[in-house]
Amino acid sequence: MTGADIENLTNEAALVALRKGKEKIDMHDFEEAEDIILMGAVREETISDKEKRITAYHEAGHTLVAWELPGAAPIYKVSIISRGMAMGVTQLLPQEDRHYYPRTHLMNKLSVALAGRVAEEIVFDDISSGAQNDLKEATSLAEKMVAQWGMSNRVGPINLGRGEEHPFLGRELSLPKRYSEQMAWLMDQEIQKMIIDAESRATEILAGKRHTLDALAEALIKEEMLERADVERIILGSKE
Amino acid sequence: MTGADIENLTNEAALVALRKGKEKIDMHDFEEAEDIILMGAVREETISDKEKRITAYHEAGHTLVAWELPGAAPIYKVSIISRGMAMGVTQLLPQEDRHYYPRTHLMNKLSVALAGRVAEEIVFDDISSGAQNDLKEATSLAEKMVAQWGMSNRVGPINLGRGEEHPFLGRELSLPKRYSEQMAWLMDQEIQKMIIDAESRATEILAGKRHTLDALAEALIKEEMLERADVERIILGSKE
Amino acid sequence: MTGADIENLTNEAALVALRKGKEKIDMHDFEEAEDIILMGAVREETISDKEKRITAYHEAGHTLVAWELPGAAPIYKVSIISRGMAMGVTQLLPQEDRHYYPRTHLMNKLSVALAGRVAEEIVFDDISSGAQNDLKEATSLAEKMVAQWGMSNRVGPINLGRGEEHPFLGRELSLPKRYSEQMAWLMDQEIQKMIIDAESRATEILAGKRHTLDALAEALIKEEMLERADVERIILGSKE
Amino acid sequence: MTGADIENLTNEAALVALRKGKEKIDMHDFEEAEDIILMGAVREETISDKEKRITAYHEAGHTLVAWELPGAAPIYKVSIISRGMAMGVTQLLPQEDRHYYPRTHLMNKLSVALAGRVAEEIVFDDISSGAQNDLKEATSLAEKMVAQWGMSNRVGPINLGRGEEHPFLGRELSLPKRYSEQMAWLMDQEIQKMIIDAESRATEILAGKRHTLDALAEALIKEEMLERADVERIILGSKE
Amino acid sequence: MTGADIENLTNEAALVALRKGKEKIDMHDFEEAEDIILMGAVREETISDKEKRITAYHEAGHTLVAWELPGAAPIYKVSIISRGMAMGVTQLLPQEDRHYYPRTHLMNKLSVALAGRVAEEIVFDDISSGAQNDLKEATSLAEKMVAQWGMSNRVGPINLGRGEEHPFLGRELSLPKRYSEQMAWLMDQEIQKMIIDAESRATEILAGKRHTLDALAEALIKEEMLERADVERIILGSKE
Amino acid sequence: MTGADIENLTNEAALVALRKGKEKIDMHDFEEAEDIILMGAVREETISDKEKRITAYHEAGHTLVAWELPGAAPIYKVSIISRGMAMGVTQLLPQEDRHYYPRTHLMNKLSVALAGRVAEEIVFDDISSGAQNDLKEATSLAEKMVAQWGMSNRVGPINLGRGEEHPFLGRELSLPKRYSEQMAWLMDQEIQKMIIDAESRATEILAGKRHTLDALAEALIKEEMLERADVERIILGSKE
Repeated sequence: MTGADIENLTNEAALVALRKGKEKIDMHDFEEAEDIILMGAVREETISDKEKRITAYHEAGHTLVAWELPGAAPIYKVSIISRGMAMGVTQLLPQEDRHYYPRTHLMNKLSVALAGRVAEEIVFDDISSGAQNDLKEATSLAEKMVAQWGMSNRVGPINLGRGEEHPFLGRELSLPKRYSEQMAWLMDQEIQKMIIDAESRATEILAGKRHTLDALAEALIKEEMLERADVERIILGSKE
Repeated sequence: MTGADIENLTNEAALVALRKGKEKIDMHDFEEAEDIILMGAVREETISDKEKRITAYHEAGHTLVAWELPGAAPIYKVSIISRGMAMGVTQLLPQEDRHYYPRTHLMNKLSVALAGRVAEEIVFDDISSGAQNDLKEATSLAEKMVAQWGMSNRVGPINLGRGEEHPFLGRELSLPKRYSEQMAWLMDQEIQKMIIDAESRATEILAGKRHTLDALAEALIKEEMLERADVERIILGSKE
Repeated sequence: MTGADIENLTNEAALVALRKGKEKIDMHDFEEAEDIILMGAVREETISDKEKRITAYHEAGHTLVAWELPGAAPIYKVSIISRGMAMGVTQLLPQEDRHYYPRTHLMNKLSVALAGRVAEEIVFDDISSGAQNDLKEATSLAEKMVAQWGMSNRVGPINLGRGEEHPFLGRELSLPKRYSEQMAWLMDQEIQKMIIDAESRATEILAGKRHTLDALAEALIKEEMLERADVERIILGSKE
Repeated sequence: MTGADIENLTNEAALVALRKGKEKIDMHDFEEAEDIILMGAVREETISDKEKRITAYHEAGHTLVAWELPGAAPIYKVSIISRGMAMGVTQLLPQEDRHYYPRTHLMNKLSVALAGRVAEEIVFDDISSGAQNDLKEATSLAEKMVAQWGMSNRVGPINLGRGEEHPFLGRELSLPKRYSEQMAWLMDQEIQKMIIDAESRATEILAGKRHTLDALAEALIKEEMLERADVERIILGSKE
Repeated sequence: MTGADIENLTNEAALVALRKGKEKIDMHDFEEAEDIILMGAVREETISDKEKRITAYHEAGHTLVAWELPGAAPIYKVSIISRGMAMGVTQLLPQEDRHYYPRTHLMNKLSVALAGRVAEEIVFDDISSGAQNDLKEATSLAEKMVAQWGMSNRVGPINLGRGEEHPFLGRELSLPKRYSEQMAWLMDQEIQKMIIDAESRATEILAGKRHTLDALAEALIKEEMLERADVERIILGSKE
Repeated sequence: MTGADIENLTNEAALVALRKGKEKIDMHDFEEAEDIILMGAVREETISDKEKRITAYHEAGHTLVAWELPGAAPIYKVSIISRGMAMGVTQLLPQEDRHYYPRTHLMNKLSVALAGRVAEEIVFDDISSGAQNDLKEATSLAEKMVAQWGMSNRVGPINLGRGEEHPFLGRELSLPKRYSEQMAWLMDQEIQKMIIDAESRATEILAGKRHTLDALAEALIKEEMLERADVERIILGSKE
């Protein structure tokens, strides 16, 4: 934790205490401040029971796939308390600073990103608009894998600048395409294939661990937030 | 109803009273003000009998499909009094705030949007330019379902930014396309397919409830406006 | 006729009288003013006999197809006096304000627009550059029917904004295309098909009423302007 | 001849006289001034004999095809004195003001435009860069015939704005294409076909009148400029 | 070494001495300054053992392929000390100024650029995001070979300006494409083919010299930096 | 030689004399000045023997093909002294001012432009990046031949503005393409075909005159510059 992080945390804790009318910051204020920094402020509104169940399964999906896939970041907290724009959040511990992202690690990341939506589909036999950001994140990552890091077989080790960001121009603003439509289509197909492969992997994991998924979702509905220790206990305690 | 809503309603009612030369606002002014806020001001002009019939069937179509489809928002009012740019309006009650829009719910929404046009086709064996806005709305929704929410099988769970809006730029102004022409064509076909599926569903419902459709349209031609209770009475009282 | 219309007419009639050196406006000035407002000022120049004949048949074509097609607007005046940019004009009576334009009505409108050119082709076995505006109008209308009003089978009830006008930007200026090239080609084919169907209908009508077409054209060459009553008399008096 | 034309001619004649050091304008100055206005100032430079022959056959080609094709404008003057940017010029008399350009007339115009190049090919079995402007003119005209005047069978009577000029924007500057690539290709093929048809017609005429072509070219090499009467005498005096 | 180079080196050495609190610049400061100028400043952070091994093999791959390919620039230094943005660096001696880059030399350069990634794949059976810059460099070079220097068979000796840079505009900013999509696709395929050929060559070399690769990587892990003499000793001392 | 040319030459000669510290301009200064104006200033740097040989064969290739092809401009000087950006130069005498460039003449020009590269390939079995400007020139010329001067069979006598330059806009800046992608591809293929035909012609000539090519290259390596008379003597003195 850097000095700047501590300063930031203290300020946030002071605001929390202030809102409660307290004159001193105590330990609870710091914990709440930490949550706010990590997951956004709590959104105070009612969520229907149906939506709460969807959120719980969505987050349980992310959590269980992150747990099962080797090399994924360890889980820190899972919550279905809606904060900011999000209905829930599965928070992974940042790992030691990485310089290389191996292909297998990135494929796991794709599966974790899509696992919330997969859980919805398995449990409710329906998908919802709620996964828009997960899809966006997964697509951006797959685009980089295919078009910048040469990680697809049919495109191969070439990088023609697709998906590059230009600091002063915003995203590729006005920069003409450097590659052909056919190459763009080849890339689109490889991006699509990677995402569908990653989704299949998530489906395989969640379909094979339905009891654990239920247990996690039920715990989330009841507790609204699970720490790493809770997640571990539930997963290890479930039988398939 | 928020404070701002009440303020807005009172101002509008004051204007209604003023236009009538009254010194005090009474209950009727409030009711008229509520209608104006919900459905736009009444357009004072003559509409031919033929056009009145078309409008009545168009709105009856929206109403009957909205009624029949499970999970659609309940009907609040239906009217064929032309207001603002519209010839008629079918108003649904806003449901409790939603965070997730499941695919099945959105497919129903598409069917309701297209049902006015379907009714015209069934009854008059012709379609008219009057459904332009319904088509636009339905196409925009289907575009989001396919290109942002990953709800079509052939495109799958990818989101390459199609149909995104940029607050400061207006709609995608100058942002270069991030996907290939082939992917755009795949998306167009899926959007087209979704809309045609939703239209078929609406056709199926309305063709099977022709008596109810006639009853609703006749009531609209006679009364010009139907409340929820009227709609319910007519639908439940019709035999197919 | 609104107050503004009357004011406009009076001013124009005053100008007509002024040009003739008269001190008072009489009935003739009003009639001439009405013509100027409806059809543009008379272009004073010589037109060769050949061109006069082409114009006469062109306008007779519009007139006869407009007469024959059910639901088309009634004819008000036909003239081959060149005014403004146009060599002749077939003027239809504005009908009561319409809110819906049914597909069958619009198909008739397309046939009327193309009928001038069809008449040229039937009579002179040649087509000329003079139909440019008719073609432009017909194409724009067919584009709206296909791309905005969902009136073609192969495109179906979708509206992706093709052909939309943006008040502040001029026609679609800089707005990127929202649909694929394949979809644009599908739309182009449907637009082409609609226009060719409408043209065939006009050809069928005019080829079957060649005597009436000749009678109308001859009357136009002789009188230069026909009123509704003249048109009716000529058409009803012709035998095929 | 309008007053402005006479003023223009007088000024030009005054300049001619001035350049010659004369104090009064005589008839010769007026004739020279007329030539300058119609055909540009004489370029004073040497042209090799080979190039003079090419120019002579090029202009003789334009002249003979213009003579042979019915309905083409009558020839006024032909010259191989290089003026401005052009090596030679075949000047046709402006005909009475036309409002309609029939397809057959325009096809003739295409053949005349391409006839200079065709003559080069027939006589020297080679084509040169000198026909660039003829090609440009012919292509622009064929583009209008296909894309604006509906004169090709496969495109038909549609006008989607291709080739339109925008007064304030220069040629279509920034206006997005309104039609598909496939439609553009269909138009390109029809433009190409029209030009090739027109070229074949010119080839047919010139190949069948080789003696007349030679006679015209030889007269041009000798006289450098031919009036209408000379052209007529040479053509009527040649035997094939 | 130019005067400017010496001045630059001296300044950098002065900064090194200053940072160490010394009053005089000694030989070590000059050596460190030379390294900074050639390879960027040392990044002070911990790198996991796994990542250190990947970096070592990556650089060993570049080094071994550069050694094996005839005509490649001689190795100057190899390092896995992370500097600036890079995790490691293989530095080749600049050769005498070249004016011609023969195709065979450029193909070798492509193989050297891709060899780091190839080594990762051979040793760890995985590829990582760390090769992004190598890919970018290789793709840019192959693009020039195909699109500017006419070095591919299927495109041939043509140069339509693809990949050209415009000093004042940044990379082709707003310049419209001068060639067709099909030609762009032909170029993309040839670029892809060249890169895949160069990669195969690197794979062949490294797979056949696995012991040497291991020896180089191990030495790098141990020493973190190898001079030319070390590299030579290790390579010549390894047996396959 | 115009007055301006003489003034330019005198100024350059004065500069040459000045650089040498002389007080008067003598004949040698004028000769050096003439070379500078025609071929750029001498680049003072060492060129490796290998590169000198490549340059010599490259220029010998241009020279021999220019000599062999009928109608090509006569050779003035050939040099392998690097000047400005170029490693060598083959200078042809400007011919009398031309107004027409016949197709056969232009095909010869293409062969001369590509002959330097062809010589490299024949002699060293490798091609280099040094021919970039030759390729660019040849491609631009072939583009004009196909797209502006109608000199290819499959495109025919059409000119849709491809490759046109706009004085105030730089090269086609922002002007939208007026033709279809298919037409662009047809043009690209014809451009490619013309260049490959011209290259084959150069290969045929140089492969059949290998002794003369060697003799020219050897003389260039020895003398660094050859005048027209030297070139003639070497070519006529060689036996194949």
